[in-house]
Amino acid sequence: MAPMTEAGEDMYGLVERLYPLCRSITGDGVRATLEIVGEYVPLQVHEVPTGTQVLDWTVPQEWNIRDAYIADAAGNRVVDFAASSLHVLGYSVPVAATMTLDELRPHLHTLPEHPDWVPYRTSYYKPDWGFCLAQQTLDALPDGDYEVRIDSTLADGHLTYAEHVVPGRVTDEVIVSCHTCHPSLANDNLAGIAVATHLARALAEQQPYYTYRFIFAPGTVGAITWLARNAERVARVKHGLVLACAGDPGSLTYKRSRRGNAEIDQVMRHVLGVSERPHRITGFTPYGYDERQYCSPGFDLGVGSLSRTPYAGYPEYHNSADNLDFVSPAAMADTLAVCREAVAVLDRNRRYVNLSPYGEPQLGRRGLYDALGGRSDTKQAQMAMLWVLSLADGEHSLLDIAERADLPFDAVATAADALEGAGLIKA
Amino acid sequence: MAPMTEAGEDMYGLVERLYPLCRSITGDGVRATLEIVGEYVPLQVHEVPTGTQVLDWTVPQEWNIRDAYIADAAGNRVVDFAASSLHVLGYSVPVAATMTLDELRPHLHTLPEHPDWVPYRTSYYKPDWGFCLAQQTLDALPDGDYEVRIDSTLADGHLTYAEHVVPGRVTDEVIVSCHTCHPSLANDNLAGIAVATHLARALAEQQPYYTYRFIFAPGTVGAITWLARNAERVARVKHGLVLACAGDPGSLTYKRSRRGNAEIDQVMRHVLGVSERPHRITGFTPYGYDERQYCSPGFDLGVGSLSRTPYAGYPEYHNSADNLDFVSPAAMADTLAVCREAVAVLDRNRRYVNLSPYGEPQLGRRGLYDALGGRSDTKQAQMAMLWVLSLADGEHSLLDIAERADLPFDAVATAADALEGAGLIKA
Amino acid sequence: MAPMTEAGEDMYGLVERLYPLCRSITGDGVRATLEIVGEYVPLQVHEVPTGTQVLDWTVPQEWNIRDAYIADAAGNRVVDFAASSLHVLGYSVPVAATMTLDELRPHLHTLPEHPDWVPYRTSYYKPDWGFCLAQQTLDALPDGDYEVRIDSTLADGHLTYAEHVVPGRVTDEVIVSCHTCHPSLANDNLAGIAVATHLARALAEQQPYYTYRFIFAPGTVGAITWLARNAERVARVKHGLVLACAGDPGSLTYKRSRRGNAEIDQVMRHVLGVSERPHRITGFTPYGYDERQYCSPGFDLGVGSLSRTPYAGYPEYHNSADNLDFVSPAAMADTLAVCREAVAVLDRNRRYVNLSPYGEPQLGRRGLYDALGGRSDTKQAQMAMLWVLSLADGEHSLLDIAERADLPFDAVATAADALEGAGLIKA
Repeated sequence: MAPMTEAGEDMYGLVERLYPLCRSITGDGVRATLEIVGEYVPLQVHEVPTGTQVLDWTVPQEWNIRDAYIADAAGNRVVDFAASSLHVLGYSVPVAATMTLDELRPHLHTLPEHPDWVPYRTSYYKPDWGFCLAQQTLDALPDGDYEVRIDSTLADGHLTYAEHVVPGRVTDEVIVSCHTCHPSLANDNLAGIAVATHLARALAEQQPYYTYRFIFAPGTVGAITWLARNAERVARVKHGLVLACAGDPGSLTYKRSRRGNAEIDQVMRHVLGVSERPHRITGFTPYGYDERQYCSPGFDLGVGSLSRTPYAGYPEYHNSADNLDFVSPAAMADTLAVCREAVAVLDRNRRYVNLSPYGEPQLGRRGLYDALGGRSDTKQAQMAMLWVLSLADGEHSLLDIAERADLPFDAVATAADALEGAGLIKA
Repeated sequence: MAPMTEAGEDMYGLVERLYPLCRSITGDGVRATLEIVGEYVPLQVHEVPTGTQVLDWTVPQEWNIRDAYIADAAGNRVVDFAASSLHVLGYSVPVAATMTLDELRPHLHTLPEHPDWVPYRTSYYKPDWGFCLAQQTLDALPDGDYEVRIDSTLADGHLTYAEHVVPGRVTDEVIVSCHTCHPSLANDNLAGIAVATHLARALAEQQPYYTYRFIFAPGTVGAITWLARNAERVARVKHGLVLACAGDPGSLTYKRSRRGNAEIDQVMRHVLGVSERPHRITGFTPYGYDERQYCSPGFDLGVGSLSRTPYAGYPEYHNSADNLDFVSPAAMADTLAVCREAVAVLDRNRRYVNLSPYGEPQLGRRGLYDALGGRSDTKQAQMAMLWVLSLADGEHSLLDIAERADLPFDAVATAADALEGAGLIKA
Repeated sequence: MAPMTEAGEDMYGLVERLYPLCRSITGDGVRATLEIVGEYVPLQVHEVPTGTQVLDWTVPQEWNIRDAYIADAAGNRVVDFAASSLHVLGYSVPVAATMTLDELRPHLHTLPEHPDWVPYRTSYYKPDWGFCLAQQTLDALPDGDYEVRIDSTLADGHLTYAEHVVPGRVTDEVIVSCHTCHPSLANDNLAGIAVATHLARALAEQQPYYTYRFIFAPGTVGAITWLARNAERVARVKHGLVLACAGDPGSLTYKRSRRGNAEIDQVMRHVLGVSERPHRITGFTPYGYDERQYCSPGFDLGVGSLSRTPYAGYPEYHNSADNLDFVSPAAMADTLAVCREAVAVLDRNRRYVNLSPYGEPQLGRRGLYDALGGRSDTKQAQMAMLWVLSLADGEHSLLDIAERADLPFDAVATAADALEGAGLIKA
């Protein structure tokens, strides 16, 4: 419990550091984010030039912003980007003008149903500018002239994403992907970035079977860029998880891959099921986070998505209420714990072939009964060995066997290790 | 609603005209029936000579009847074919004799449990003669001599059936088949004939995708004759419906094809399911109407059967209570409406392949977001496009996609049209 | 009912004769058992020498025992093998010593939770000796010296098993296997031996379709020996049943083969289902009786296991309470009856091909309607013929057809006979 609490606090600390930065699908806010993440795990950062063709898309111009505000006639900033990166419409073109409130109104975005919240809005592919503010702020503005200023640039530059790789015993890969493009929104997706970072650190302490690749990239165009630049690697990606909304108070949600019965789907269902955590498992939909890209039919990867409250499923979604109070160390620690439990199963889940399939092999003369511990453990370990021998036909995975036998995965995997050690099965 | 009410009245008018005729598996009653149907839709009438080998069967002799009666000693006709075609056993050989009531009794058929109803009986393949009458009529007959007369002929001639074809954009066919061999029985099967006729008229107003072939033929031997004479065409028959008992007050019943999972089975289940009509879906059985022949294992066509109350499922089945009061314009209009809804789905239900399957294609730059209407429609249309792109793998039909996405079929088909127009998918 | 009652009494008589004998996996007790069984059905007895390699195992030394006891200082036998074969640990090495009660204790086995029951224990593969006794007997023993004597021999010899074959019309085989290695335990497995013996006698009175092979062999190593010596025959074993615990008061339990959907699994489910007997059907587990060997993945035979209360599922399991009072003629007669019902289905259950699959063949002209009996029978027989014609595609067995049509298996098999006689289908 203690290490998980510690991990929770560490992750929360990372979220706090990242929260003020103004991220978008390109720009220096993303670079600053990756620099901080890189203090936790070494990152390989990629810069892809504007105009690069990536699958059906083109890398857009890079957006950077230094300042933005609306000031009243007295020069007071009534809306100020310095107070929150949410105040400016993402990808706003530069503006420097004075206009009446009525002229300004079409560029102002509010949430009338939550008058004290500031919404999050972007306009990536249609040139536009705007401000997001609380309805109550807007309501308090007197008519009159306002100075409007957005000191941004949209220019050829780069799209920035990063990778961290934990090498495994095989080159087959598991990808863990999280989007890095949202500005000051804590759950969506600083919590996902924090959980991915700490999962990478935990994996680094062991030599896993699979090679685990962590992808930190802007949503949609970032995942598409990664896929475009990794056409050959994709064939080695056997499993994957998209992490998003990983820190809110809701219970866990696993969204299946497009295949619906990929190994990751079985692993997540199993791990959540035996954990007795409240949780939901939902079918794939072609909407949500970057599982949309990884599961597009040409790739159709075995990639699911783990969230707490899912995409767009909470009032705080995409507005200023998704702040540092909305996420907690405990929730992120819980998400991380499930990720680690899933990795522990996935990484040991293999298919074996019984090398002595005609009748039962005589376990006693190989010391496989003696090797066992206490009495009730013995019974479970013996049953696990018999089940592995019975179903090790190259078709059933150890998780298939555990579920069929209604035995803990760990007991089955331990039995498989013992049987492999005795030369009775091979992977 | 108005056109359907009008269609209901039109269909009822057709049933009224056909009701008095004495139909059987051959003979002039069938020809007169097809002549009347031919006033509604042009028919190609086929005459197949007696003795023609059709699959395992042989076209029988043609039966015609001019008059039949039982007259008492005073010369009063106590049972008279002129009053109802049901009074004579179908395919009765000619008789002209005087006999006592006791001698006559073995040739008299009644329904003791419904003493005022006249049963319908035939003896196609075993030479016999007889009369059908109400039990109460029989009970009132005094002993004594009766004149018995059946002025019929059984002679070499022809079996008569007809087809009407609505040409489509492809030569793949949908057959709609109904039996024409029952005499004065309204639900079984004048209502089926009427619904098929009006479905043909409705299809003629559009150019459907499939070619629709309507078959009007006597039960069993007629369907067998059609199959025998269309051995090569059968390979082009992709779907089909047998229409029977289409006008009674009961709710709709769809009986699956022998395959059980043919496309027509899915379409009918879907259409009945989303319609919120009370209905029943039953498994295939090798009994009933001509689906028996179309689904025989050598053909195994994707042909189901649509009825209201199914085969032999109502007390009025095969007796004089299946009369013009038992069927209604509204019931036939309802059956026709479901047929049209099914055709609307079946005719647009195709499998597409995503031509841009690696990642999502950028819909915005193709104007596929702009093309959309109001806000809530937009969301559904956008989801429909994403679902089609996700599942357009040549395996999933549009109906599969609609059911998986829980979206209206029409929204999915419209999305597919838009995506095909943009060159993103192809059939 | 009478013959079954008689069979029950006969089986009980056999159990009574076998009960006193001291059986083990080898030795004269097994031979004496087979000699008695051989009075009921002729047996082919096999003797396999010690040291013979059988699959992964080696035939062990032969164990024989003449006497064993613990005597107190006064020379009274406080535990005496002559009273029950359970009193000695199976495969005990010889002992002749005097020792204190405390020295003796590690060799004494009791059931503290049932203080008046004597447990059954063995040590086949680890040289050891010991006594089994009631806890209350042990509690009554005063401290002091005891004479301990086991007059046994462990020496090269043979493993003994037997077969009885009922020849069928084909050489494909059904095996019925029961273990013969347990000493004075009535349900486990003298009842199984008795039911197998009487099933063999019942089959001998008819010429079955399959060849039925009854195997009487010690558990585990006996089945392994049979498999090792019948490597070529195994390919001809199409179905099988392991009989065990066949006489207790509980309801019937069928444990599926490893395949889970083998024909025997379907037959047993069907027979138990239509019988309206209370029963349980359980999935395969790699524990229990010799289905473990027959269903090991290299063989993976379609062999299930029929018991009343299953393996280890009753308090009397493997102790002196599994005695002649625990089994009854009625329970064994019931088990036998289910076996015979299963054999009646299995033996007629074949796949046919419709030779006239295009449209329905005209049954009337072949006299297949005339051949039928009373009216309601006629309807069922006619439906059975139509269903067989519809599904006789080489894929569906007669039992598949019966279950799909919801008709009695016998009606379907009779219809198939009639259709085969008319040349309309062939196996």
